[in-house]
Amino acid sequence: MNNRLGVCVIGSNGAVATTAIAGIELMKKNLVPRRGMITERELGKVLDLVPIDSIVIGGWDLRSDNAYEAALHHGVIQRHLIDQVKQELMQVRPWAATTLNKSHRSQEQNLVLKKSIREELKHIEQDIQKFKALHQLDRIVLVNLISVEKFSIVEDVHATIEAFEKGLDSDDERISPSMKYLYVACKMQIPFVNFTPNLTKIPALEHFSEKCGIPIAGEDGKTGQTLIKTVLAPMFAIRDLQVDGWFSTNILGNNDGLILNDPSSNKTKVMSKEKVLDSILGYKVDNHQVHIHYYKPRGDAKEAWDNIDVSGFLGENMQIKIDFLCKDSILAAPLVIDLVRLLDFAKRNGEAGIQRQFSFFFKAPYHAEGEAALHDFFKQYDLFKNWVQKSLMSSKKAKAPSKEELVCR
Amino acid sequence: MNNRLGVCVIGSNGAVATTAIAGIELMKKNLVPRRGMITERELGKVLDLVPIDSIVIGGWDLRSDNAYEAALHHGVIQRHLIDQVKQELMQVRPWAATTLNKSHRSQEQNLVLKKSIREELKHIEQDIQKFKALHQLDRIVLVNLISVEKFSIVEDVHATIEAFEKGLDSDDERISPSMKYLYVACKMQIPFVNFTPNLTKIPALEHFSEKCGIPIAGEDGKTGQTLIKTVLAPMFAIRDLQVDGWFSTNILGNNDGLILNDPSSNKTKVMSKEKVLDSILGYKVDNHQVHIHYYKPRGDAKEAWDNIDVSGFLGENMQIKIDFLCKDSILAAPLVIDLVRLLDFAKRNGEAGIQRQFSFFFKAPYHAEGEAALHDFFKQYDLFKNWVQKSLMSSKKAKAPSKEELVCR
Amino acid sequence: MNNRLGVCVIGSNGAVATTAIAGIELMKKNLVPRRGMITERELGKVLDLVPIDSIVIGGWDLRSDNAYEAALHHGVIQRHLIDQVKQELMQVRPWAATTLNKSHRSQEQNLVLKKSIREELKHIEQDIQKFKALHQLDRIVLVNLISVEKFSIVEDVHATIEAFEKGLDSDDERISPSMKYLYVACKMQIPFVNFTPNLTKIPALEHFSEKCGIPIAGEDGKTGQTLIKTVLAPMFAIRDLQVDGWFSTNILGNNDGLILNDPSSNKTKVMSKEKVLDSILGYKVDNHQVHIHYYKPRGDAKEAWDNIDVSGFLGENMQIKIDFLCKDSILAAPLVIDLVRLLDFAKRNGEAGIQRQFSFFFKAPYHAEGEAALHDFFKQYDLFKNWVQKSLMSSKKAKAPSKEELVCR
Amino acid sequence: MNNRLGVCVIGSNGAVATTAIAGIELMKKNLVPRRGMITERELGKVLDLVPIDSIVIGGWDLRSDNAYEAALHHGVIQRHLIDQVKQELMQVRPWAATTLNKSHRSQEQNLVLKKSIREELKHIEQDIQKFKALHQLDRIVLVNLISVEKFSIVEDVHATIEAFEKGLDSDDERISPSMKYLYVACKMQIPFVNFTPNLTKIPALEHFSEKCGIPIAGEDGKTGQTLIKTVLAPMFAIRDLQVDGWFSTNILGNNDGLILNDPSSNKTKVMSKEKVLDSILGYKVDNHQVHIHYYKPRGDAKEAWDNIDVSGFLGENMQIKIDFLCKDSILAAPLVIDLVRLLDFAKRNGEAGIQRQFSFFFKAPYHAEGEAALHDFFKQYDLFKNWVQKSLMSSKKAKAPSKEELVCR
Repeated sequence: MNNRLGVCVIGSNGAVATTAIAGIELMKKNLVPRRGMITERELGKVLDLVPIDSIVIGGWDLRSDNAYEAALHHGVIQRHLIDQVKQELMQVRPWAATTLNKSHRSQEQNLVLKKSIREELKHIEQDIQKFKALHQLDRIVLVNLISVEKFSIVEDVHATIEAFEKGLDSDDERISPSMKYLYVACKMQIPFVNFTPNLTKIPALEHFSEKCGIPIAGEDGKTGQTLIKTVLAPMFAIRDLQVDGWFSTNILGNNDGLILNDPSSNKTKVMSKEKVLDSILGYKVDNHQVHIHYYKPRGDAKEAWDNIDVSGFLGENMQIKIDFLCKDSILAAPLVIDLVRLLDFAKRNGEAGIQRQFSFFFKAPYHAEGEAALHDFFKQYDLFKNWVQKSLMSSKKAKAPSKEELVCR
Repeated sequence: MNNRLGVCVIGSNGAVATTAIAGIELMKKNLVPRRGMITERELGKVLDLVPIDSIVIGGWDLRSDNAYEAALHHGVIQRHLIDQVKQELMQVRPWAATTLNKSHRSQEQNLVLKKSIREELKHIEQDIQKFKALHQLDRIVLVNLISVEKFSIVEDVHATIEAFEKGLDSDDERISPSMKYLYVACKMQIPFVNFTPNLTKIPALEHFSEKCGIPIAGEDGKTGQTLIKTVLAPMFAIRDLQVDGWFSTNILGNNDGLILNDPSSNKTKVMSKEKVLDSILGYKVDNHQVHIHYYKPRGDAKEAWDNIDVSGFLGENMQIKIDFLCKDSILAAPLVIDLVRLLDFAKRNGEAGIQRQFSFFFKAPYHAEGEAALHDFFKQYDLFKNWVQKSLMSSKKAKAPSKEELVCR
Repeated sequence: MNNRLGVCVIGSNGAVATTAIAGIELMKKNLVPRRGMITERELGKVLDLVPIDSIVIGGWDLRSDNAYEAALHHGVIQRHLIDQVKQELMQVRPWAATTLNKSHRSQEQNLVLKKSIREELKHIEQDIQKFKALHQLDRIVLVNLISVEKFSIVEDVHATIEAFEKGLDSDDERISPSMKYLYVACKMQIPFVNFTPNLTKIPALEHFSEKCGIPIAGEDGKTGQTLIKTVLAPMFAIRDLQVDGWFSTNILGNNDGLILNDPSSNKTKVMSKEKVLDSILGYKVDNHQVHIHYYKPRGDAKEAWDNIDVSGFLGENMQIKIDFLCKDSILAAPLVIDLVRLLDFAKRNGEAGIQRQFSFFFKAPYHAEGEAALHDFFKQYDLFKNWVQKSLMSSKKAKAPSKEELVCR
Repeated sequence: MNNRLGVCVIGSNGAVATTAIAGIELMKKNLVPRRGMITERELGKVLDLVPIDSIVIGGWDLRSDNAYEAALHHGVIQRHLIDQVKQELMQVRPWAATTLNKSHRSQEQNLVLKKSIREELKHIEQDIQKFKALHQLDRIVLVNLISVEKFSIVEDVHATIEAFEKGLDSDDERISPSMKYLYVACKMQIPFVNFTPNLTKIPALEHFSEKCGIPIAGEDGKTGQTLIKTVLAPMFAIRDLQVDGWFSTNILGNNDGLILNDPSSNKTKVMSKEKVLDSILGYKVDNHQVHIHYYKPRGDAKEAWDNIDVSGFLGENMQIKIDFLCKDSILAAPLVIDLVRLLDFAKRNGEAGIQRQFSFFFKAPYHAEGEAALHDFFKQYDLFKNWVQKSLMSSKKAKAPSKEELVCR
């Protein structure tokens, strides 16, 4: 099997992306432990995954710094480590993002202006093809790590592929950047990961991805506070400790935090975080609150503070407080690497459409119509385990797609 | 089916026992919600369990207060609730505990002096029979809620039932009170729950319980800090977040706390709490510490503070702090009620010996020779779920033992 | 000296007021310790204060429940205590509040409609006089415990007493209820405490209070989070630990919390809390945030969580987290009692206008023009100590005002 | 004034000492902010202190690494900073410590064996004189930063200088290393700082230091948990919030932590920490506990967790939890620099014996016979402020001692 995997990242200069890029280079040189990835543990190792050393990352970003400069800027990785992969990182320069409308974007940015969405799509496609040729890549995975977009809901333009393509033709503003990239992924038969809370789970693209034969996974990586929430809540359910209230607050000082100061983006994120609890517990928690605040001193090192009020036997009240001093990108980057490798495998294994078995990577996991999103971390993990088992049996028959199959029409 | 179940509690005046006793009376009168018990939720309700209203509790204690006085003393339940079941509680008076040696016990206590262990055993047996007759009970379950005993290990006297019975004959000091009661339970074919960390899992009694056909479950109820530990640790394993250290401290001001000020009892308890982590994670956590301190202002409302140091991607460090403001007896009492009902059912269903499917109730779950103790809360729960499924199919064949079978010889 | 002191509370059915009312009755009967009041410790006892037993509380409220019903509703005091002063509390019924405009108030409320502010003022004055006569009181103190009002700033109508009185004549909407009561206090020569964050420190009334010879103290009682902030910040200054950020969040479930859900009231409160830090530290803390959230499960038992980022030697970062599980009204009520006794003393001792020596009771202490507000808790306390010393020397000359002096014209 | 100040540190390779040494070099080069020192703020700057640039540090240690190696080992300062003063640090090599008894010390250590205490003292004196000559120093201050010694109490040998000198002659084992150095300091008229909890406040040396005209200050630097304790406790006293319990636990992973695992050293430290509370509050806190645990993952970055139970109005309970994520040496090193400069000034200003005005630097501040130790942080600070005022007036008369006066006989 030819085995060079390209990863195209939307938002490749962000903290998560540069941490993943630098991390891969550091792991290639054995300068850091291969930790934090399920694909490097027993359960993952049994699958026929692309080796980490065969992964090449590129991508689009509004900022034009190279990955070395970007990594220094984000301050996630210790400087003495970054410096040991300086050469490699300096060669990773983001491709220009496309935009339709010159007016509301500064000229300094790494932007290409296009007259129509269709032209934008063409440009994106060409970027991917150039990247593939340049690095002699066998396969591609597309990963969405773009900043949080304004809150939006499913409308008529998102309902069917026909309506959606009409929207593309008419430059409909309700088609977000995230949706455009997913559409390109479908057309080019490239697996797609939405690691952001941005709306991509729309009927049009859900069905189109199935039709095009590409596996998709999302959305909103489950890293810190929500991870712990979906781990503890099942226990409360089993022990029949009633959750009377759950107050969650987050302080973070990275770019993500700054964007989340905008109420509309904040809503997109908070909505993604709030859904999980009722689903696991089986009843509505009246006092479930999630707050996110930009707080500069903390940088990328987010702090998530939770207070949980539960009542048990005789209706007696108890409290649990959790303070998670985490590092956002350190938790997210390995999941991105896991997902890239698993999606690539799934594609070769013939899977298409929503990949529910990857729910345990996400705050708001994709789910098919008629099904509920699965939030209980341990049920999610069981799903994954079972899929691994099943895949092991069927994977002998899997093969890489031929080059001709690469565009969906 | 005749359906009056007696529960004989060793340590019936303690905080957990009196909370259970009062709780049952309050539930009978519908003065409190039936919360905190898995046997009152869907999973439990499908089994043919004894109704809570058919449970009668009695037991032994060194203290001679009635259950009303004891409940007031412990201060677990709000006074206006206790007062509503005052009549019922005042009728519950502990039976005298037995002891071999007059010298080291105060005369004021509720104690009966016996010349030999064999005499003690006889006395215990008679107490149970009197209780059964008095309340016209159909079946009995024995529950160990005695205070933490001095640290002890398995020695030759504990190795076989022959050695053990010889030890009984020679009044061997290595036979603890907890072991004596379990022996009586075997002989009388009564299911046995060890909710304490005291050593009862000894080969002699493990095999004897199987031979006598009684189900046993233990040990050390998993309520607060350890519960959360066995919930979070599986997530760390799945996410490959390495646990570099786990510091646990407990402050509590009830009688339990006072006894745990004694280093030897403290060791018994701490040992029980420390084992869980390495088993779940699959490696030795070098810096796992558990401390328990008597701290009066908190009363029964224990506070468990945990700090966890984990490292993830690139070896980067993160910290989680958990502060659990819990109520020891409020968490423990419903588990005792669950166990009593489940053990009674298991007995009728023909189960004998170690009941591994109840592991999720315990910090140091019983396990058969050759097997490891199961600590992962969600794997424990899976075991339980599967057992419920299996039991549903086989339970039609289950029946109450005939009265003649009641003593094992 | 005749020595019966009446306290007229604006908002007498609130949690703080009813806690103070019940607390005084409980202390009269020696059912609770006399704790939490500086006037019951050495420093306070040296002054010639009115005994707690001579205090009678009444007041206005929109709600018409008697104090017993209100105390039960707020749930601050344990029921078995409230019941022991039930008779006393049932006799305390709030007087109707006045309002100008029928339309926006429900008819069910305890409200008297008036055609003009001047009529309102007259009504308030009559309420006070009736209360005084009924209980044969020698002196009165007026305490503002009304709910948080909408955010407002000093405008022209507040600038001089002439402009203010013109505003009274023309029913100017910028004259808030809090200001009306303070005006009446001035006219009737009654000391005034503003325990709320509502704007009362306006030039017009500040000068008028001085002219009328009444001591005034405010504003916004310093109870929980801000108290600790003004205690720790001086230490950071002395140790030269630079405060890089201070994130404060509050969750509370009482009526106060509900009102603070309204953004405008929230602003009034948050502004009052935010000012303190820069003043103590001597520089602007860029990342000082204060959030207040209504969170029902906690009731009156507020939780205040703080994270403080400091940097010290070599610019190294450190963090302090503080979780204060406090009870709002339990902290506030004794301060109200302290202030009532101290203001009454100050009046007898000839003090008038802003009483800066009481700064340590307040989040946003009154200060004279040209002076800065004093926030450092220990400097505030020094001021109080010095005032006590000085008062001890001069108090021999102090005397109760003659009845004729009681109205300021 | 000649103005080169030498500092001789006992334990110069420890984390605090190397942080101070490296910090001074970094400040000389303006690579870090001059933060964390009161002597660099207004209050300190008014005094005629030696400039930081004129300070030269040397000292004794059992380890023979140079200061660069030691600083790397302790990991307190970020590597990229240490490397910028590598040359300067590599030149600082510890002098050999002396010991009486070969048997219990490894041969690898940086030790000189001596036959008697008197020979040890002579050796120490010579080290100081050589250091002074080598660096052309005008004055010396001696700082004790040695590891925590075993717990000891004042005995007859410590009572008078005569008994003590007899003890020196007879190699009395109750004369600890800390005491030996203080004795040398007295003889050589060198100011002495005891930054450790080791017993040095013995009548013999207290009086001798006065007689020899040297100012002394100690003991046990007040950095983290105790600092906060002595800041909060005064507030509890002023607000009359009764402290029902104060539970303090510390986890730290540096060498200090390792030594404190030894129960006898732990006792020395804990005793030093426990005394403060009752003194400030004016009553005995029954449930005041201080625990210190060695916990490796944290390194020098100590975590101090406190739970405080207070009761207020009506006897109602509240809780405060404080989690201080501090850096031991980062908090301690600037205090050492402050003390060195202040002691040097005090000596020139004619002060001798216990310097009570420096109490706010210490957990267990020296105090004269008949006086109580002063623990309230703000009262301590007032003492310091007053002393600065007084010194400003008298300092014109102060002068450096003539070289002839340098040995006390």
